[in-house]
Amino acid sequence: MSNLPLSGGRLWDSLMEMARIGATPKGGCDRQALTALDGDGRALLARWGAEIGLTLTTDRLGNMALRRPGRDASRRPVAIGSHLDTQPTGGKFDGVLGVLAGLEVLRALHESGTETEAPIVLVNWTNEEGARFSPPMLGSGAAMGAFTEAETLDRRDPDGVRFGDALRAIGWEGDADPAALRDLDAYFELHIEQGPVLEREGLDVGIVTHALAQQWFDVTVTGEESHAGSAMSHRRDALVAAAILIEALEGIARQAGGDGRATVGRIAVEPASRNVVPARAAFSVDLRHGNEAALDRMAAALRERAAAVAVERGLTIEVAPFWSFPQTPFDPTLAQRLRDAASTRGLRWRDMPTGIGHDAVYVARRVPAVMLFSPCEGGISHNEAEAITPEWAEAALLVLADAVVATAGIAGD
Amino acid sequence: MSNLPLSGGRLWDSLMEMARIGATPKGGCDRQALTALDGDGRALLARWGAEIGLTLTTDRLGNMALRRPGRDASRRPVAIGSHLDTQPTGGKFDGVLGVLAGLEVLRALHESGTETEAPIVLVNWTNEEGARFSPPMLGSGAAMGAFTEAETLDRRDPDGVRFGDALRAIGWEGDADPAALRDLDAYFELHIEQGPVLEREGLDVGIVTHALAQQWFDVTVTGEESHAGSAMSHRRDALVAAAILIEALEGIARQAGGDGRATVGRIAVEPASRNVVPARAAFSVDLRHGNEAALDRMAAALRERAAAVAVERGLTIEVAPFWSFPQTPFDPTLAQRLRDAASTRGLRWRDMPTGIGHDAVYVARRVPAVMLFSPCEGGISHNEAEAITPEWAEAALLVLADAVVATAGIAGD
Repeated sequence: MSNLPLSGGRLWDSLMEMARIGATPKGGCDRQALTALDGDGRALLARWGAEIGLTLTTDRLGNMALRRPGRDASRRPVAIGSHLDTQPTGGKFDGVLGVLAGLEVLRALHESGTETEAPIVLVNWTNEEGARFSPPMLGSGAAMGAFTEAETLDRRDPDGVRFGDALRAIGWEGDADPAALRDLDAYFELHIEQGPVLEREGLDVGIVTHALAQQWFDVTVTGEESHAGSAMSHRRDALVAAAILIEALEGIARQAGGDGRATVGRIAVEPASRNVVPARAAFSVDLRHGNEAALDRMAAALRERAAAVAVERGLTIEVAPFWSFPQTPFDPTLAQRLRDAASTRGLRWRDMPTGIGHDAVYVARRVPAVMLFSPCEGGISHNEAEAITPEWAEAALLVLADAVVATAGIAGD
Repeated sequence: MSNLPLSGGRLWDSLMEMARIGATPKGGCDRQALTALDGDGRALLARWGAEIGLTLTTDRLGNMALRRPGRDASRRPVAIGSHLDTQPTGGKFDGVLGVLAGLEVLRALHESGTETEAPIVLVNWTNEEGARFSPPMLGSGAAMGAFTEAETLDRRDPDGVRFGDALRAIGWEGDADPAALRDLDAYFELHIEQGPVLEREGLDVGIVTHALAQQWFDVTVTGEESHAGSAMSHRRDALVAAAILIEALEGIARQAGGDGRATVGRIAVEPASRNVVPARAAFSVDLRHGNEAALDRMAAALRERAAAVAVERGLTIEVAPFWSFPQTPFDPTLAQRLRDAASTRGLRWRDMPTGIGHDAVYVARRVPAVMLFSPCEGGISHNEAEAITPEWAEAALLVLADAVVATAGIAGD
C-alpha cells in the first residue's frame, strides 16, 4: 500500500472539468475523436501534465504519452492508459476515468516528491470509441501492429474526412513512432465496467483477467415471399426461421457458461412490407467466450441449429464468418498485483473477463497488460446517463496507484 | 352451361398483348397505376371494347366501365371487374386475367349475337395494387364509399405526385360519378389465387366464399441497450423478446385453424449495431381469420403472450392497433352459381376464403359480389415470375362466363 497523497476529490474535480468539454444538455459528453473538442480535451490533459513536469510525446497517430522519469533510466516505463474520446452521446467516464486516474497517480507522485525506479507513462489513445472512425481502438491497434500506420491514416469518417487530415486539422499530429509504445514494462488500464455486475454484487473493483474471444457472423435466411393472406401451411417464412435462431442463440450462450455471450444487434428483412411474408432475413451474430474451444462449440451449435431449421422449413440458411478476435489473456502477475492492492486496502473485488474491446486488449499483444474495472450505475455506458460515484472512482484510483507503484518500484525502497 | 363461343386462345392472346405494355426483361410487367403505361393499357382495353360495341364510361377516379346493353333496360347491370395496374415488378396475370376474361365473355356474347336480359358491365378499377398510391384498392374503395372522392384525389405517390394530377396527366379523368358503380345487380371477379392451394390440390378453380377479417398491429418492445460483451444474465434484449413473439405468432395462427394467418412483414431494431444488444425492436403484425371472433382470440393471444414475455424479461411491450378490416362474406347465391357452373363443366373446384384484399371485397359492401380463383404456379404473384397455364385461364373463363350469363339471363330463354 502506497502512502501517496492520492486525492479522490481532485480526480473527481478533473473528471468534471474534462466533462465540460463537449458537455451535452443531458449531462453526457460528445467529444468524438479528432474533432476540435477532442483537441480541447487533449490540450487540457497536456496542460495538467505540464503542471507536474510530465514530458509529452505525441506520435504520428495522435497517441499522447506523458512521461515521468524514473530513477533507473535503463528501465522500460510502466504505462497507465485509456482514452479521452467519447461516443456522440457518450458519458463522462468511459475512458476518461482511466486517463485521469493515471494523471492523479502522477500528481500524487509529484506532490510527494516520490521517485519511482521505472519511468511512468500516461497514455491517451486516439479514437478508441470507433464512433467517428471505424474500427474502434485504432490508435492502440495501430501502435501494436494490428493495423498499419498508412491504413489507419487513410480511414475515413462517415463524411469522408480522412483520419490523417482530421488529426492534422486539430494540430495533434506528432512525429513519434507509434511502435515506440510497444516498448513498455507493463500496461495498466482502469475502465468503468460497462456492465452491472460489480454494482449488483456490491463490489469495489473488478480484476480483469482476460478478454473474451469473439466470432462474428452474417446469417442470411432465404425463404419464399408470399402474401400475408396465404395459408400458413405453405409458407417458407424467412423471418420466423430467423426468430427461431435468435431465440436459440440466447440458449446457446447460456449453455456455454458464464462467459458465453450471443448478440444479434442487426436484422433486416425483404421485401419489408406489412402484408408480405419475408423472403429474406439477414442478421448479425456476435458470439463471445473466454475459452476458444467453448466459443467454437457455440459457433458449431449455431450452424447445427441453422441447418436443422433450414431442413425443417424448406429454407436455405447461410452462416458466413464476418470477423473474429482471439481470446486475450491479461498478465497474471499484474492481475495478482491488483488483487493484492485491493485486498490490502480492504476493498471488495472479483475476477472477471471483459467481453468488450479496450485499448488494453491490443496492448496485451505486445506488452504485459492488465485491466481494472470500476462499477458503473446500472451497467449503463455509451450513454449520456452513464454514472459512477466519487467513492467508486477513489477506490479504483487507490488500487491502480498501488499496483502501478508496486510495478514501477519506489527508488530507495 | 352456356353455348357461347368462348375462346381460351383469344383470351391468352389478349393477355400476352396486354403484357407487352410495361413488359420487364424478366418476363413480368411494370404498369403501375396512372403512369403513361397504365394509360396505354387502358387505351388498349378501350379499343377492344369499342371493337365489340361496348360503351365506355370513365368516372372522376379513372374507373373504367365498358357496358353492353341488355334486353331489359330497367335491370341493373351484372358486372365483371378487376384491374390492369401492376406492381413495379409484377406479373402478367394479377388483375389482368379478371379484366380480359370479362372481355372474352363480352366478345363471345357479341360474336354469337347473344342478347342478355340484364346489361353487362366490364370494370377496370384504378390503383388496385397500391404500389404507387397507398392504400390499395383506391378506385373500388372510393366508389363504394370507403374513402371520399376528395381524399382519394389527394393521395400522393412516393414522389409527391397527386393522384388527381396523375390521372389528368394520362388523360383518364372522366366525369361520371364513381358512386354509380354501386348500382349493380351482381359483381363477379376472377383473380389468380396468389397462393399455392389450388395447384397443389390439382383443382381447376376456387370458389371464394368470403374475405378474411384482418387486424394489423404495431408492436414495440423496449428493453435496455447493453454491450454485446455484457453478461447474458443481466440483459433486457428487445430483439430476443421480439423473436419469441414472432415465433409464437406462427403458433397462434396455426392454433386458430385453417383460416388463421399471422405475418410479421417488417422489423427494425435500435440502435442496430452489431455489438450492441438492441434496446428497441419494432415489428408489424398482420392477423387474419375468416371468423371475427377467432380473429379477436388471435389478437388476445398476441397481447397475452406479449404481456407474459414483458414480465418474464423486464421489458415493456406495446401492441398498438394499426388498421383493421372486417370479415366480408361474398354472396352465397352467386357463389352457388359458380359452383354449379364448374360442376356442369366437369371442373374440379373447392370453396376457399381470400386472405388478400381485392376490389371485390370493397364492392361486396354495396353489391352482391363473389370471386373466383384460378391456380397460379407455386402460389407466386407480385413477381415477374408469376405464371398460369392457358388451360387454367380457359377453365376459369368458362366458369365465369356461365355464372355471369346465368345471372344476367339470356333474352328469350
